[in-house]
Amino acid sequence: MAVRAIVFDAYGTLYDVQSVARITDAAFPGRGDYITQVWRLKQLEYTWLRSLMGRYADFWTITQDALRYTLNTLGLSADERLFEKIVEAYNNLELYPDAKDALAALNPYRLAILSNGSPDMLNTLVRNSGLDGVLEATLSIHGKRMFKPNRAAYEVVEEALRVEPVDVVFVSSNGFDVAGAKSFGFKVAAVQRVSAAVLQQELRTGGIGPQAMYKALRMQAEQLGVEPDIRVAALADLPGAVAKLAAAA
Amino acid sequence: MAVRAIVFDAYGTLYDVQSVARITDAAFPGRGDYITQVWRLKQLEYTWLRSLMGRYADFWTITQDALRYTLNTLGLSADERLFEKIVEAYNNLELYPDAKDALAALNPYRLAILSNGSPDMLNTLVRNSGLDGVLEATLSIHGKRMFKPNRAAYEVVEEALRVEPVDVVFVSSNGFDVAGAKSFGFKVAAVQRVSAAVLQQELRTGGIGPQAMYKALRMQAEQLGVEPDIRVAALADLPGAVAKLAAAA
Repeated sequence: MAVRAIVFDAYGTLYDVQSVARITDAAFPGRGDYITQVWRLKQLEYTWLRSLMGRYADFWTITQDALRYTLNTLGLSADERLFEKIVEAYNNLELYPDAKDALAALNPYRLAILSNGSPDMLNTLVRNSGLDGVLEATLSIHGKRMFKPNRAAYEVVEEALRVEPVDVVFVSSNGFDVAGAKSFGFKVAAVQRVSAAVLQQELRTGGIGPQAMYKALRMQAEQLGVEPDIRVAALADLPGAVAKLAAAA
Repeated sequence: MAVRAIVFDAYGTLYDVQSVARITDAAFPGRGDYITQVWRLKQLEYTWLRSLMGRYADFWTITQDALRYTLNTLGLSADERLFEKIVEAYNNLELYPDAKDALAALNPYRLAILSNGSPDMLNTLVRNSGLDGVLEATLSIHGKRMFKPNRAAYEVVEEALRVEPVDVVFVSSNGFDVAGAKSFGFKVAAVQRVSAAVLQQELRTGGIGPQAMYKALRMQAEQLGVEPDIRVAALADLPGAVAKLAAAA
């Protein structure tokens, strides 16, 4: 095995989905945190459920449906303009602060994104964040009409980049994506930003609100019978970990 | 169309998954509510994710994996005996108080369960709760190695009962199951125990803890592009609603 490409998940891995909280809280003061968490949780659920039901809808539609669901739970409504403004937050997510330096350090490798996002969303997001000059390819699962962690979603990488799965390091902070990518055959690097110890501390000492629930549900290693090859606490640690993996190969 | 059979989801529809809280709280005082909610949320997630990944494991295994995940988030551990005792709670769930009367009133119809549960779990649960004399069949998705809401899971009903999907009323309080069953072709009755108004009130007035998050995530009508034929607030309302549906057919 050689490392021939490094492929990143987008939402939650390079881009901070929590960065929509500024917009959700401006739209509905005091409700931003709840909306941000439930919106993201339902968005992911709907990718899984629609894939399982064979009722694909693109990620932009699902992102809107999940927001509508979330606002309904609070009995809130947004007129078309406000609704659009909130959804647009997913086209303007902030990069994690260490993302650009990590990508620069990995520059010798072929670099790409593989995401659930629809092509329009991804191209906008990559352009808005200035990653368009850094990535060789921004790949969407859209053509497969199946979301991660279905195998079909990961096949896009091989088809677009002409690399064997075993020669790809796939990077994700989403536990379900780590499991799916590893199960598919990639080498996998898991970015685990919330350590078990930190989460335990948070759950034991405070009231457990929407954000703690989100961390508990989404930001810990899953029990799905597959383990990543590398675990790092931040993207900053990735170049070193990949170098070690490549040297051991 | 005629109503030829009424098929119930088990977990959350006839049986109250919240009834495990007595056992989780006895095992870890003060932590029962959090454990109950996260355990159930991850249990469902794992059915979806494993189905999508093509890595089926039976519901008993998934129930254990989800409990292990949940305890890990708190940094808690249970020895084998305690762990087993907690998991066993899923074999001793309480029926909703109106379940037996509703089933009795529906007695003229063929009655069955179709559940994600593994056959052993379901048979134990049905026997422990005294439903074994009431139901014609207790059906599991197990033979399909795919969980709801995948179409394959619902095919079991037609194969076992020899009824056309359109002649079946499928009853579920799980929004994803309502969507999956309707998408498959059943007539569907959604049991919506937490009204939008009651949830809104709860979310607006209190701190939003694990149980409120569970209700917000799991107990509202989904935005998945399919709607049930009937909505009732409780199983007690089901016989009347089914009679109306049958009369209109």
